[in-house]
Amino acid sequence: MKGKRTLPEKKDRGSLFIVSAPSGAGKTTLCKKVLSALPYLKFSVSYTTRQPRKGEVNDREYTFIRRDEFTRMAKKGDFIEWAEIHGELYGTSKKRIEELLAAGNDVLLDIDVQGASQVRKKSREGVYIFILPPSLGELRTRLEKRMTDSQANIKKRLKTALSEIKEYTAYDYVIMNDILNDAVRVLEAIIIARRASIKK
Amino acid sequence: MKGKRTLPEKKDRGSLFIVSAPSGAGKTTLCKKVLSALPYLKFSVSYTTRQPRKGEVNDREYTFIRRDEFTRMAKKGDFIEWAEIHGELYGTSKKRIEELLAAGNDVLLDIDVQGASQVRKKSREGVYIFILPPSLGELRTRLEKRMTDSQANIKKRLKTALSEIKEYTAYDYVIMNDILNDAVRVLEAIIIARRASIKK
Repeated sequence: MKGKRTLPEKKDRGSLFIVSAPSGAGKTTLCKKVLSALPYLKFSVSYTTRQPRKGEVNDREYTFIRRDEFTRMAKKGDFIEWAEIHGELYGTSKKRIEELLAAGNDVLLDIDVQGASQVRKKSREGVYIFILPPSLGELRTRLEKRMTDSQANIKKRLKTALSEIKEYTAYDYVIMNDILNDAVRVLEAIIIARRASIKK
Repeated sequence: MKGKRTLPEKKDRGSLFIVSAPSGAGKTTLCKKVLSALPYLKFSVSYTTRQPRKGEVNDREYTFIRRDEFTRMAKKGDFIEWAEIHGELYGTSKKRIEELLAAGNDVLLDIDVQGASQVRKKSREGVYIFILPPSLGELRTRLEKRMTDSQANIKKRLKTALSEIKEYTAYDYVIMNDILNDAVRVLEAIIIARRASIKK
């Protein structure tokens, strides 16, 4: 206790939330909504070797770097997780997360199931949240709506999704993304509740 | 997994939330607000030996019973916690809580710090939430506003509050009841988040 206040001193360090899902579960939309609702919740900007798309700003959507820079960072262990997707490299910076947490922010990582698994191996902290599509039928519909994939690819993605869904027991929370606003409310609740937890 | 749904089957059993606070922290107002906001959250009706007040309905505010009935129940171990307050007995029924939980409801117990300590000894389950007044100065103001206590009693209550506040580390969550609506939001968040937790 300090001065007049009877509240236990808020620990300055924030919490790390790892939100993961099979593709098509609606994870990114959900994360964006929650990020805009909670001011103390921050998003860690990833590094990538891919070219910026129109409208993307360096250090906002991504930090765009050359492949040799990326591999040098990866070798140094600068990434808490990284992956090659469609020939391009994507990585999450340890240092950026650490700086945000140390400054008292909560940090949200929106990463795939493999990435979450890498983070789990490297970090002792973190609240793991798994987003589920309401059903495999609905997942197929969502993947088909994107219309960026061939039927063969959709089938492959569904198969991957099914094997990833089996991993949910390694997580702390499971949210079914059936009705988006309900899912937003639950994800917000997990983050808000964590701030009141005394066993961080 | 069952049928088409990919969500892990919701466990039927609900969670038990024990909300406790030093007197004057605003616990009861807070609990009432959250109970009315969350339909699956139930309040366990306590037993008491005191006379019903005007407007109170048996089995709604309390179950009103005779002293000999109460002591018989207490001896049988029917209460998860009980206490004598101003000469009257108050007890929380184990059976009622068990029935509500088994039916899939979450249950909120609004009890004092001593009661919470009794529940902790008897039950393995439960999420313990401690409500803090924003400061001892504010607590004094709240106790004085009630105008039901003498100065000596207020001093005694403040002393008790201070010793109770020291017990907060035995709880899972601490909520500072500074701005009521903020505190309501945090308590709701803890209850909602628990439903998404897979480590119940």
